Amino acid sequence: MSVSEDERIARATLLHISEPANSALIDHVDRVGAVQAVDDIRRGASIEGVDIDGLRHRLQATSGAADIERAARCGARLVCPGDEEWPAPLDDLGWVGRASFGLWVCGPLSLVEATATSVAMVGTRTATDYGASVAADMAFELAERDWSVVSGLAFGIDTAAHRGVLSAGGTTIGVLACGIDVPYPKSNRPLYDRLASEGLVVSEHPPGSAPQRYRFLVRNRIIAALSLGTVVVEMALRSGARSTASHAAAINRHVMCVPGPITSTMSGGCHRLLRERPETVLVTSAAEVVEQCGHMGDLAERESGPARTRDLLGPMVARVFEGVPVQRHANVAGIANSAGVSVPVAAAALAALASAGLVECVGDRWAMTTEGRRDRRSRSGADVDQLELDWW
Amino acid sequence: MSVSEDERIARATLLHISEPANSALIDHVDRVGAVQAVDDIRRGASIEGVDIDGLRHRLQATSGAADIERAARCGARLVCPGDEEWPAPLDDLGWVGRASFGLWVCGPLSLVEATATSVAMVGTRTATDYGASVAADMAFELAERDWSVVSGLAFGIDTAAHRGVLSAGGTTIGVLACGIDVPYPKSNRPLYDRLASEGLVVSEHPPGSAPQRYRFLVRNRIIAALSLGTVVVEMALRSGARSTASHAAAINRHVMCVPGPITSTMSGGCHRLLRERPETVLVTSAAEVVEQCGHMGDLAERESGPARTRDLLGPMVARVFEGVPVQRHANVAGIANSAGVSVPVAAAALAALASAGLVECVGDRWAMTTEGRRDRRSRSGADVDQLELDWW
Repeated sequence: MSVSEDERIARATLLHISEPANSALIDHVDRVGAVQAVDDIRRGASIEGVDIDGLRHRLQATSGAADIERAARCGARLVCPGDEEWPAPLDDLGWVGRASFGLWVCGPLSLVEATATSVAMVGTRTATDYGASVAADMAFELAERDWSVVSGLAFGIDTAAHRGVLSAGGTTIGVLACGIDVPYPKSNRPLYDRLASEGLVVSEHPPGSAPQRYRFLVRNRIIAALSLGTVVVEMALRSGARSTASHAAAINRHVMCVPGPITSTMSGGCHRLLRERPETVLVTSAAEVVEQCGHMGDLAERESGPARTRDLLGPMVARVFEGVPVQRHANVAGIANSAGVSVPVAAAALAALASAGLVECVGDRWAMTTEGRRDRRSRSGADVDQLELDWW
Repeated sequence: MSVSEDERIARATLLHISEPANSALIDHVDRVGAVQAVDDIRRGASIEGVDIDGLRHRLQATSGAADIERAARCGARLVCPGDEEWPAPLDDLGWVGRASFGLWVCGPLSLVEATATSVAMVGTRTATDYGASVAADMAFELAERDWSVVSGLAFGIDTAAHRGVLSAGGTTIGVLACGIDVPYPKSNRPLYDRLASEGLVVSEHPPGSAPQRYRFLVRNRIIAALSLGTVVVEMALRSGARSTASHAAAINRHVMCVPGPITSTMSGGCHRLLRERPETVLVTSAAEVVEQCGHMGDLAERESGPARTRDLLGPMVARVFEGVPVQRHANVAGIANSAGVSVPVAAAALAALASAGLVECVGDRWAMTTEGRRDRRSRSGADVDQLELDWW
């Protein structure tokens, strides 16, 4: 590893004394390095845009080395820029001045490997049954396709997404808004334990720190950065999930939304995003998520309605078929008249229909076969709109 | 009226002998006029691209004048290009070679006035309860905003849309795929009667003609052309409603889709259209439809979540508020440390919080007020994601 012990301790210290996404401090660390930056804070040096007094005040009660020890006791490590395990895509946060000093990581996988082909799935904590089952199913299918799923270990959509992956035996990563050793929400402890033992738990906050509201928002940028795209399954008009989508868009990740009933408040935020941000993509399946975020060859198979014999006929032949009476026999001229085509056109079309088994010739008159009646019936009444013109 | 009796009879004849959207014949009528075109057909003149034998065959059994009389007996009139009642937007169909020779119209309103501010609402005949209620509600609200609604008098979405308008006392127009005097589907007779007596019924087909499959598709272009935009409420992956959307797009009308559960087949076609045609707009309310199709000043009001006291505070003050313990008292230094800000920042923020009634000063220590606890509670747990970052 190319990260020195001093550097790692300095970064643990920075994570402790500064809230994440402090762009002025990030700039300074970029310029002088983490060790020097901590020294500057200790000396009370003036750093433009940085509240040096606040940092200095907290530095007095902080030991990065102690945090590393404390994390190690619960099996967690600090992964820093320069480490093999540091995912390069995280550095994209630097484009918008929101880079991370490092991540506390707990779990048996390599963070860089676990997030190589990953998608974030997020949404409201107060998910509906619809949203929770969509999230679980989609996450399950993503896992089946060897995609890992990043989320926030919160109730609702996050929990459904993590669980969906676990039930497929896949890889899932939970990014916390509190200390790496703080299972939050408390009743999600079993899920936290599974992620820590089978997947990964990740946090930017010093061990032991409590969840605080603004931490959820800055945490969301890590979720966005650790994945190729973010899927919002359900969110109300005001929702933290929107911040994950914002972060994703800001660092050039795909933003996807699952639609839902317009009568559901919990789909309202997804619909608004789809309306207001044209770069947001509507997705209805794991295949479409992979098509959006994946590489060539990942195109989702286009579902389509069932094919019928008549689908194979040209429009003129289909039109003549319409002119054939269902019960009676009719001569060519009558069928031509009813279909609005000339007699030769009708005769040619009837021959084609006969070879398709839809009509039969009886003497000089034509009648529909049983197969033809079945085809006609399958399209009539309620089903008559099942025809698509591909003009568009 | 500037349309001569001969011209009107000739157009009735053309509507009888030719299926609509016969672009070669439309071209010829554009060049030589309807009267001359009928004469050319009678003489068996060669017209490029036109199946003259078929037309001539049907012409022998056709009388435009008789059709006009027959229509008059059921209270219908033939409206032609050149009539005051002819809506100019219908001529847009000429851009794509699918102009209409004229429309049979039945009902007490002027077609041009009834369609001046109108939207088409279409969809599957096999609507779900969700789709039918969304169509009815949206149509009702469009009518309340003085928009008229054009649809196809079919079961499902069409019926729900027409009924929604009627229950608001608004204007609705039904475009048939059969003769103006043929209520189809038969069990929709009561709706047909209401439209003929309170709204308008419209058809391109000669009186008495039966519905045939391809007529539904060419009929859809009239629905699209008579409105400023088309809203698809529900459709399966293969659906005639898609042809209405195609026609609308082809003549530069707005195309809108209502989303639904991704688990519903009947929303599948809407989702696909939204995915595949970026010009398709997702709509969730009548207001959004009007915003899309209407003029300046029709902007839909943006709904948003409920406002809370804390929404009025800046981010730094909100962050300090997070650092105030819910049950205990704490001094400024403790709160500053917990919030990760300097003591002077914390002191200023606490003063602002006190004036908002969220915290109170007790001696040299600070505590949360009942109001503050209520605000904190309203945001905690399940509700903690109700915060939006507007970075995007």
